Amino acid sequence: MLNPDQLLQKLHSEFEKHTYGVNPAELYEPISYIMSLHGKRFRPLLTLLAASIYSDNVESAIQPAMAVEVFHNFTLMHDDIMDRAPLRRGQPTVHEKWNANTAILSGDVMLIRAYDLLLDVPKEQLRSVLVRFNQTAAEVCEGQQLDMNFETRWNVSEEEYLEMIRLKTSVLLGFALELGGIIGGADEESVKLLYSAGENMGIGFQLKDDLLDVYGDPLKFGKQVGGDIISNKKTFLLIEALSKAAGSHKEELDKWISAGQFDPEEKVNAVKAIYEVLDIRKFTEEKISTYFERGLADLRSLNVEEARKASLLQFVQQLVEREK
Amino acid sequence: MLNPDQLLQKLHSEFEKHTYGVNPAELYEPISYIMSLHGKRFRPLLTLLAASIYSDNVESAIQPAMAVEVFHNFTLMHDDIMDRAPLRRGQPTVHEKWNANTAILSGDVMLIRAYDLLLDVPKEQLRSVLVRFNQTAAEVCEGQQLDMNFETRWNVSEEEYLEMIRLKTSVLLGFALELGGIIGGADEESVKLLYSAGENMGIGFQLKDDLLDVYGDPLKFGKQVGGDIISNKKTFLLIEALSKAAGSHKEELDKWISAGQFDPEEKVNAVKAIYEVLDIRKFTEEKISTYFERGLADLRSLNVEEARKASLLQFVQQLVEREK
Repeated sequence: MLNPDQLLQKLHSEFEKHTYGVNPAELYEPISYIMSLHGKRFRPLLTLLAASIYSDNVESAIQPAMAVEVFHNFTLMHDDIMDRAPLRRGQPTVHEKWNANTAILSGDVMLIRAYDLLLDVPKEQLRSVLVRFNQTAAEVCEGQQLDMNFETRWNVSEEEYLEMIRLKTSVLLGFALELGGIIGGADEESVKLLYSAGENMGIGFQLKDDLLDVYGDPLKFGKQVGGDIISNKKTFLLIEALSKAAGSHKEELDKWISAGQFDPEEKVNAVKAIYEVLDIRKFTEEKISTYFERGLADLRSLNVEEARKASLLQFVQQLVEREK
Repeated sequence: MLNPDQLLQKLHSEFEKHTYGVNPAELYEPISYIMSLHGKRFRPLLTLLAASIYSDNVESAIQPAMAVEVFHNFTLMHDDIMDRAPLRRGQPTVHEKWNANTAILSGDVMLIRAYDLLLDVPKEQLRSVLVRFNQTAAEVCEGQQLDMNFETRWNVSEEEYLEMIRLKTSVLLGFALELGGIIGGADEESVKLLYSAGENMGIGFQLKDDLLDVYGDPLKFGKQVGGDIISNKKTFLLIEALSKAAGSHKEELDKWISAGQFDPEEKVNAVKAIYEVLDIRKFTEEKISTYFERGLADLRSLNVEEARKASLLQFVQQLVEREK
């Protein structure tokens, strides 16, 4: 049984070898480009770790795991156009380096290539895997649409926000684990637990993203701490603050949100001070713990020997403790 | 056995009943919108006609046939963004009626929904159908990329142009027929002939589009005759004229192409006069006939009773003779 580092190594070398197409170069080069900026690749790793609970041979899970990562990068390529994002993983986004048309069309081909990679699941499981993948993929798009809708709304509830991040982020983590379970040969109940684990961890993961953007260690975080506050991004923290603030705190918060010109550091400190009064940090940390705990509980209740899930649990623990 | 009109009726009523999703409305309404502008829907009809050669029960081909149409409309939604097209079938395009972000994301979901509909093929054929669909879908994107590349090139060869329209248009017609054959239960050789028939008919079909834009009957054509000439669109006719013109004709053609301001009618007449001298119309008509003949020959050589292919042949004959 390979450990997480070895599985990740395997994934990296498979991605190195993989080609998405050659001609026309204008269509395929942006795919190689975005895939070469590889992030943590923890989605396909989750698939392999879940498969390895049930099988010592994870070979048959590799291409399907890669499908999850290619799909994820397809959503990044298209989301970056919609969000007009200039950078992705510190490098120019595809629509910046080339143009929006290129990012649209190359993204389309990536989605098709994700389906290609998925065809590698055992034949008897293909239909049910595709049913679940299609549902997940559509939900991710629904999450992105909700996220865009929220940009122009100031009355987003906590419940709506959690549902948005569940769709945009969590369902794919759920599917990544579920897929590994299916290919590894897990029973139906375990497959459901794996999905639920991913779904819960995903919500915790996204909330932690929101938290780190405000309270992360600047030396570790990698992005500008406070960036979300500066841009009025509707994070869990801001949504909570908007719903809890009253009186002078509400006025102060509204003032900073609607300020056209301001000193960024001053705004970050002022909004953080409001968060402090409203106990937003603690409330968010508790939410994160709740979701992570639910996810870990799902994994603990998987009915297999402890030793078989050690790798997955260990890796998930790292995600829980991450500081960047 | 249903005739083409009855099959088309069936398709229309299935599309009426079909839902692509509900929430968020911003994501799904544009899909209902573009699908409600239904064009001729001859792609899914080709699938049903091909299936009906081999089986009296075309029910199992209906959802997969719809997948072909949904995929086609997905490409239209995204191509219209890239081409900045204001109108589609006489109505505002999705990116005009909503915005580009909506057209990107709704289009993405349409592609996913096309895969959903494809899952309805008999289980034992699913993998091979998806392999072929993925290849076709990627080729259609390659064709669109080549088409965009050609916009900024003045030395596109006839061969390059034919390859572009083969990818952008023909392979999907080939797949539509192939898919029907597979579901109907055709043998491997017949499936290949069906694909080849669609591929050849598709090239003929696109060349006829180019021809009708210049020589169509204004009362029947539906679009402004001469529109391609006015916009310097690189059609088969212009590419041939560019490669054949010499001396004063070459100068005259270049003058009209580079003219910034001009009287549209004057330009159309002048370019048509050059086409006349270079015998472009006749050359194009012969090309069209060649491809249509190849396609019809493919269908004629299908090894089944004549009566079984009568409907498909009759319908294809209508496509050959169309004047709009």
